[in-house]
Amino acid sequence: MLGLYLENVRKKSPLVHNITNYVTVNDVANVLLACGGSPIMADEPDDAVEITAICNGLNINIGTLNSRTIESMFKAGKKAQELGHVILLDPVGAGASTLRTTTALNLMKEIKFDVIRGNASEIKTLVLGSGTTHGVDADMADAVNDNNLDFMIKFVKDFSKTSGAVIALTGAIDLVADSERCFVIRNGRPEMGKITGTGCQLSGMMTAFVVANPDKKLEAAAASVCAMGLAGEIGFNNLKSDEGNSTYRNKIIDAIYNMTGKILDDGAKYEIR
Amino acid sequence: MLGLYLENVRKKSPLVHNITNYVTVNDVANVLLACGGSPIMADEPDDAVEITAICNGLNINIGTLNSRTIESMFKAGKKAQELGHVILLDPVGAGASTLRTTTALNLMKEIKFDVIRGNASEIKTLVLGSGTTHGVDADMADAVNDNNLDFMIKFVKDFSKTSGAVIALTGAIDLVADSERCFVIRNGRPEMGKITGTGCQLSGMMTAFVVANPDKKLEAAAASVCAMGLAGEIGFNNLKSDEGNSTYRNKIIDAIYNMTGKILDDGAKYEIR
Amino acid sequence: MLGLYLENVRKKSPLVHNITNYVTVNDVANVLLACGGSPIMADEPDDAVEITAICNGLNINIGTLNSRTIESMFKAGKKAQELGHVILLDPVGAGASTLRTTTALNLMKEIKFDVIRGNASEIKTLVLGSGTTHGVDADMADAVNDNNLDFMIKFVKDFSKTSGAVIALTGAIDLVADSERCFVIRNGRPEMGKITGTGCQLSGMMTAFVVANPDKKLEAAAASVCAMGLAGEIGFNNLKSDEGNSTYRNKIIDAIYNMTGKILDDGAKYEIR
Repeated sequence: MLGLYLENVRKKSPLVHNITNYVTVNDVANVLLACGGSPIMADEPDDAVEITAICNGLNINIGTLNSRTIESMFKAGKKAQELGHVILLDPVGAGASTLRTTTALNLMKEIKFDVIRGNASEIKTLVLGSGTTHGVDADMADAVNDNNLDFMIKFVKDFSKTSGAVIALTGAIDLVADSERCFVIRNGRPEMGKITGTGCQLSGMMTAFVVANPDKKLEAAAASVCAMGLAGEIGFNNLKSDEGNSTYRNKIIDAIYNMTGKILDDGAKYEIR
Repeated sequence: MLGLYLENVRKKSPLVHNITNYVTVNDVANVLLACGGSPIMADEPDDAVEITAICNGLNINIGTLNSRTIESMFKAGKKAQELGHVILLDPVGAGASTLRTTTALNLMKEIKFDVIRGNASEIKTLVLGSGTTHGVDADMADAVNDNNLDFMIKFVKDFSKTSGAVIALTGAIDLVADSERCFVIRNGRPEMGKITGTGCQLSGMMTAFVVANPDKKLEAAAASVCAMGLAGEIGFNNLKSDEGNSTYRNKIIDAIYNMTGKILDDGAKYEIR
Repeated sequence: MLGLYLENVRKKSPLVHNITNYVTVNDVANVLLACGGSPIMADEPDDAVEITAICNGLNINIGTLNSRTIESMFKAGKKAQELGHVILLDPVGAGASTLRTTTALNLMKEIKFDVIRGNASEIKTLVLGSGTTHGVDADMADAVNDNNLDFMIKFVKDFSKTSGAVIALTGAIDLVADSERCFVIRNGRPEMGKITGTGCQLSGMMTAFVVANPDKKLEAAAASVCAMGLAGEIGFNNLKSDEGNSTYRNKIIDAIYNMTGKILDDGAKYEIR
């Protein structure tokens, strides 16, 4: 069933504006192309506003934010909202510094996001207005596991209700929820954490999925999470013993490139709670 | 015959200064090394002027321009011109926003470019002083095809005459022209459009080719276009069924790395009109 | 013996803050993950100070410096020093422009670096307070070879004494020295020079090695140089005839990912002088 949402991305080829960090930006562009979308990047304030206007969606990632790009995030975000575009927030490192936390929280105040995607500690930071982050990876104590699953499902549904956004909390188990329903997703491989930017890539791709399926935001976001995790499984199975995280990165994007709706349907592992 | 121009790049190892976007900059550096050139990047205004002075050519790409890097483009461009260096303009996204269009047009007013390389819609924007761009890819309606070929050949020759630059308009069919002659090139694969930055890579490589062949700017620019397209064909033929755009990116740069003058001569598909 | 220092990186997983250039930043992040470390990047001044505070080490690379990132280098450097963190300087292009030379020299005045890693011409620039750099690669005349080896060993030991830092001068022969002892390392392949950023990658990895082995800074820095060179040898041996510098880049990072202490011990080629 989720395969349909991928097929819609390939059919509609949504143009996604990314204001994102320079660490993983190339992979974000290539994964967007791999899934059928089209990427564009602009982060000078005036340019960002005009570029957003010709796009279908906006992916805001605060990974290497600075005063200029922050201004672009607010300006482009408001323009995108005015135009009814899909807007996604990836609060990279929220909780790790005042600037990141404050920027993410202020963005949420001024812009109505369709989707917010982050790890457990980043999402907790947004909910609590404070928190701690071990680098950009999920604090282990904060991870979703089978022991705290019920609690975490309620947690993301509640946050979706208060924020009005679909919440994608990704980790070993991924949760994608609106206020009513939560996709509990078990695709992926732990080795994906040894590649920089699989989260950033997912945020770019998720924006394209939601743009291409405007009436099914929750399902589309969940489909992109399953697709990324499944690509991680396919890529891992293709790895030879002397290959490592750099080749794995390529193989994951390749797997997205070759993924059909049927492959996604057959490989997606989720339940709805 | 075009193979000679590649061999000259390998012999002379031109040092190319790139003021370019952060999305594809790593690939630009690696393709420059692959073809025998040497890359350097600097985009703080004072630094850019001094770095340009120790280089042999300057590649200006406006892909993720901002007020600081725009200042660097003008200052480094003027210094490079003063020193008689080869200067190339890649007007990424000209037509898509006021800032990009204005910057590209103003750069053309203040700096005499040796080569301008862009897709059909970007080049049209420079000619008309306005236009539209679907993201950074060629607007389909603007593409060169066999029906409008005669018109487009005249169009690029005319633009070369008024601008004084060699014009490289790239797409499914590539045109590389001065005011008198136009190389019509049919190398390449449509799948190259699924990789971010093959155009940016070509601009970096083209700068090195023209630097290494100063008396044959047109031929050198055409040779780099054939080399990039041929690398796209070789890389595609080496792709396995489970590989996609990320591995393809590597294989194209690898093919440039292994390309000899003879391989280029044997594989180049062009006519001169 | 050096394998132990790699194993400590994998055990302790040091978090390394990188203020580095946007050309090679993705590879720096992936090689840090490959060796067992964890990367984070922040270069807005206030953010950089806070992010550094939650890290274990700081890698300052001046490759695409600008006024904003320079301010971040000084502020984060001082904070890291205050907290007793390991700090590394990679003076990319020192000698090639006034801004790069001045910034590197001023950083050395205001911050006590634990390690300085550069090519011969960059290190000479720091010693002499002036110099010349052919792009970002070592000036051939400045390279360490068997004829000037004794002189260069004394040169780096002397610089270590005056600067108080472990000095890593890398090239065909790598020297890693404190004031008393110098590791003369003969791992690596000349083809590594055809990949952008192997030096930047090494600096990131070296920071992680020194953080994880605080009482053995010299040995840890030398171990990282052997590991990078050995990965270059392993990756090269795995290259097929149609592969080139782009695939080679992946294979080197992959080789770091799969390297064990024993592999490093068996493959490291060095003498202590």
